[in-house]
Parts: sequence; structure tokens; C-alpha cells
Amino acid sequence: MKKLMNDPRSFVAESLAGFARAHGDLVRVSTAPTYVVRSKLVPGKVGIVSGGGSGHEPLHAGFVGRGMLDAAVPGEVFTSPTPDPILAATRAVDQGSGVLYLVKNYTGDVLNFETAAEFAAAEGILVRTVVIDDDVAVQNSEFTAGRRGVAGTVLIEKIVGAAAERGDGIGELEALTTRLVASARSMGVAIGAPTVPHSGKQSFELGADEIEFGIGIHGERGRARAPMASADELADRVLEAVLHDLPREPGERVVVLVNGMGATPVAELYVVYRRIAERLDASGVRIARSLVGSYVTSLDMAGFSVTLLTVDDELLGLWDAPVHTAALSWGV
Amino acid sequence: MKKLMNDPRSFVAESLAGFARAHGDLVRVSTAPTYVVRSKLVPGKVGIVSGGGSGHEPLHAGFVGRGMLDAAVPGEVFTSPTPDPILAATRAVDQGSGVLYLVKNYTGDVLNFETAAEFAAAEGILVRTVVIDDDVAVQNSEFTAGRRGVAGTVLIEKIVGAAAERGDGIGELEALTTRLVASARSMGVAIGAPTVPHSGKQSFELGADEIEFGIGIHGERGRARAPMASADELADRVLEAVLHDLPREPGERVVVLVNGMGATPVAELYVVYRRIAERLDASGVRIARSLVGSYVTSLDMAGFSVTLLTVDDELLGLWDAPVHTAALSWGV
Repeated sequence: MKKLMNDPRSFVAESLAGFARAHGDLVRVSTAPTYVVRSKLVPGKVGIVSGGGSGHEPLHAGFVGRGMLDAAVPGEVFTSPTPDPILAATRAVDQGSGVLYLVKNYTGDVLNFETAAEFAAAEGILVRTVVIDDDVAVQNSEFTAGRRGVAGTVLIEKIVGAAAERGDGIGELEALTTRLVASARSMGVAIGAPTVPHSGKQSFELGADEIEFGIGIHGERGRARAPMASADELADRVLEAVLHDLPREPGERVVVLVNGMGATPVAELYVVYRRIAERLDASGVRIARSLVGSYVTSLDMAGFSVTLLTVDDELLGLWDAPVHTAALSWGV
Repeated sequence: MKKLMNDPRSFVAESLAGFARAHGDLVRVSTAPTYVVRSKLVPGKVGIVSGGGSGHEPLHAGFVGRGMLDAAVPGEVFTSPTPDPILAATRAVDQGSGVLYLVKNYTGDVLNFETAAEFAAAEGILVRTVVIDDDVAVQNSEFTAGRRGVAGTVLIEKIVGAAAERGDGIGELEALTTRLVASARSMGVAIGAPTVPHSGKQSFELGADEIEFGIGIHGERGRARAPMASADELADRVLEAVLHDLPREPGERVVVLVNGMGATPVAELYVVYRRIAERLDASGVRIARSLVGSYVTSLDMAGFSVTLLTVDDELLGLWDAPVHTAALSWGV
């Protein structure tokens, strides 16, 4: 196994230590329990908290900061954080206006955030939770009942974070998030499997000329194995699945995310984005904004995912609002 | 070969087409000849132009925009751009105050930028050129006389771009760049070889447990093959080589770049950055600013490089100045 790593047991802690050191202007990293919190909280603001297993960086810690998350709770690699650090992060960000949990739909994450919410409620902290399930690939999966939560999470965290920053109340934010979840659809394709630090092995086997459509971000089985194909063919097939499932209205506009899975260089992602944009043009879907890069990864998996989020003027305003985090920054 | 690609002959053009589509607010991409130019030029400003072979994305096109480059000239993969597109980019950005070329030290790049400068001079455009050679790994190499230009280029482009934006003249900018080149040192290590689109083959062979210290960004031989080691050992060895060569003064401050080679996830880069920061602390070198991410890549090579740039208050002010490009954005 070739990873930039020391002991697999300390991988997440050491990566977070480097993150803390590099971004001390934006965040503070707590250890024991482990969470990442925005260095300057806004008095009276609803706290926005997300988290989940590590291995998907920059998600979620890379999105802590002004206009996005107030805290992120990273578990070990591909392992849900326990309720303890979630509760600690909740206490750390609560300003008396409540805390909203944004949870990707994996059974462990959902249960542990739920338990933390109960503990927080017992302490008098108002918590609401919205589960994100944007992956159209499969119903139910190795670690999930229903659809999985994947790269659409970034778009949702950005927009909800902006709404919290402008002062929306927790009820409004919960409703906004629910609406965004209903409007976000994603699917991914793996062209190379990731190597898991603890086992030193690839999380699934992929033949030299084989790929997997609908791959999960923990290497969960997708829809189908297929032979490797051109970038355009892969893009078309992924986009078709996403569009097929996207609630659509005439003249709609979308935010497009072409997301790298961890080991795919950005030059290749732009080849894919070019095709996605051409196909959306041909389908009469207008691209309002786009994002191309590796935002929700799966260790060193190679491949990409495509997310579409339908938006109106209000959502676009929130998208364009200032954001200042380690992995996403504009308008500040 | 598994790459998100259609025809290798159209890889660069298709990637640039996607880049143009994604960043139409920042840049315009010319084809025939191929160059990327800032969408809004500043009247009277000295033009800052860089370029070189493709395969190092986001370098250079990802750094075109406010406060950094006015134009980038990408050649084919690992192939210098010819004088024609360099001249066209020069004409496109010239505002009557001259154009500064920032050229990584590879023989083809140096020759072709030199030829373009002669053509431009014949048209009455004042051009100055500074060659960047920050790689301490080896003297002379497959494509280079003297040291190679590598990831330090990003730091130099950022600072020189900020100085041009504040209105410095071409003589001052040339002197500033020369000073920066003297203060920047880098070295890289490859833990996995990249696959070249045209050949479909890896650009060099690396055993299952083998790495290469001092690797070039085109896969040129470095200092030594070695067995794979821990992140800390790799970081120490790279940092030692960089520090050994860095002109040093007591109480100095540095900008640190821990740069991913293309296929290395950011979580691993933070593990390395953590160690680099600890070692610099122990060496009495103060980290003034840091950057962790994949900025100067080598297709899908796995590994990292470390760059140190010694800075004073003036250079830090230029580093902190607003920048708005596809790959680097703050303060705007």
C-alpha cells in the first residue's frame, strides 16, 4: 500500500492536525472528542453541523467557515462519528437559536446524529435534522436504507449555510434544506478503486478495463459493471441517470457539480464537464452555476460524479453569497 | 489505460473547452492558436504571461484572473507551446506597458518564449522574461539545462501578479520576480507514476514498494529510488533537501506549499503538512502562510512536493492581496 500515512490508526487525527495548522484563521480543531468548529461564531445564528466518516475530504471539515458550516464531526475512515463528538460540536456552536444537522443518508450516521440530537434536547438545545439522499444509483445499499447521500451535500451545505448567515430561523432552514434535498440528484462512476488505510487493500476489485456505474463513496456496489469507455460515453450515461430522476420544470436552471473521487486530476474533470454542459444545452436545461473539482472524495478512488440541483433566483442568491472555508471561497 | 478522455489528440483542447465553459466569468479561451486570457484586462497594467506543457493543471490556466496571470499558454501534454500562441497571448494582453513572461526552466519553454519575445519586440511590444528554477533535486535533467521549474511557480505567479495589479512597472516586476526565484526552493517525491495520454503508458516504472525522491513534473529522474516509507520520513527527507538549499537568514519567515502531484487526496497532503510544520517549528523557521492542495500536478502521478519561499512584510502583503482565479481565490 502506498499512502502518505504513518500509522493507519492515527491517519485521521494527523490529517486533522495538519488541517488545523493550515487553517487556524478559519477553524479550531478539538480532539477528544474530535470535531472542527468555526473560529468565529456569529452570535444568535442557527448552528449548522454536518459530519460523517472520514475519507471524503475536503468534506466536511473543508466547508467549515463563514457562510457554510459552523462545525464538522469527522469519524474514522468510512466510519460514522459517535454521538459524543456530535453532541460536543452541538454545544460548541449553539447560540440559543438551535442547531441544524445535515446528515448524509447512511444508517450509522443517521442513528448517531439522532442520538446526539436526543442528548442535546435533554440539555435544552433545539436540534433539527435533515437527511440528504441525492444518489440516484440504487435503493438501499450496504450501509444505507433508501438512497445514499453523496456529492449533492456540498451544494446543500453551501446554500443552507448562506441562509443561516443571513439570519434565517431554524424552521426556515429546515424547510429550505428539505426543499434542496428534493431538488438534488447525483450519480458517480469509479474507474479505479480506493485503498483503505486500515486494511491496506482496495475496497473493491475492478478489472483492468472495468468500471462501476453508480458507485457509492465507500465503494458500495452501484448499478452495473461495464467496460471502460470514453469520457463522453461515461458522462452521457451518468447524466442520463441523473436527469431521469431529477424533478423537472420547463426552463429550469441548475447548479452543476462535476466532482472528482480523489485520484482524478482536474484536467480530466474538465473534459467531463465540457460534455455535461453540451448535453444539458441540448436538453434545454440551463446551467446557472458550475463547480468542477474534488469536493466529496472516496480516499484515492478514481472517477467522478455529477450532481444537478435545480435552483431559482433566491437559491442562486444564496449560492453566490460570500463563503470563506478551506475548500470553497468566494465573495470575501 | 483508464483516463477520463476521448481521443488523446483532443485531450488538451477538450479540457480547455470545459475550463472555458466553467469559468466564463474569469477567462476567455482562444483556440487556433491556443491560449487563455483574462476576461477583463486592466488598462495600462503590465501583462503577466506564463505557460508550458499541459498535464500540470490547474497550472497555468487555473491562475488566470484578477491579481495573478493575464494569460496562460498551454502546450500539448508535457510539450512546450510554440512561439505562435505565446505571441498571440502577448498581443492580447499588452496594454502598452510591456509584458512579463514567467517561464519554468525547461529548454523547450525557454526557447519558445524567447522566440516569441523576439517577434513581440519586432512588433514594438516590450517583453521581459524571468526563468523559474526552484527544484533543488538535480542539476540538469532530461529536458532542462540547470534546475527545473516546479511548484514554486504558483507562489511566484501569485506575488508577481499582485504587484502588477497594484501598478508596478515592468522593470520593478522583473526585479521582484528575480528576487522571488532566488528565494524559492522545492522538491518532490513520487509514490506512483502518471499515465501519459498519447502513449497510454506510465511515464516511468516504479516498483510496488518503490518511490522516487526529487522526481520531475514530467517524470524526469530525481535523486534516488528508495523503498516506500512513512509520511513523516518522506516529509523529513524532502524538507531537509529544500532547507539545505534555501538561502536563510535568522528569524526568517516562509510561505509553505505542500503540493499534490495529481492523484493524491488532500487528506494525505494534510498529514504531510502537519509534519512539515512541526519540523519547521523545530528548525526555528516561522511559517507566515501556507497552501495545501494540488496546484502543480503531473497528470495522475501520486506524491507531493514541498516548496518554501522566504518572505518579508512586503511580499506577505502581496501574497494576501485579492486574487480571483479558477484555482486560487481570496479577498474578493
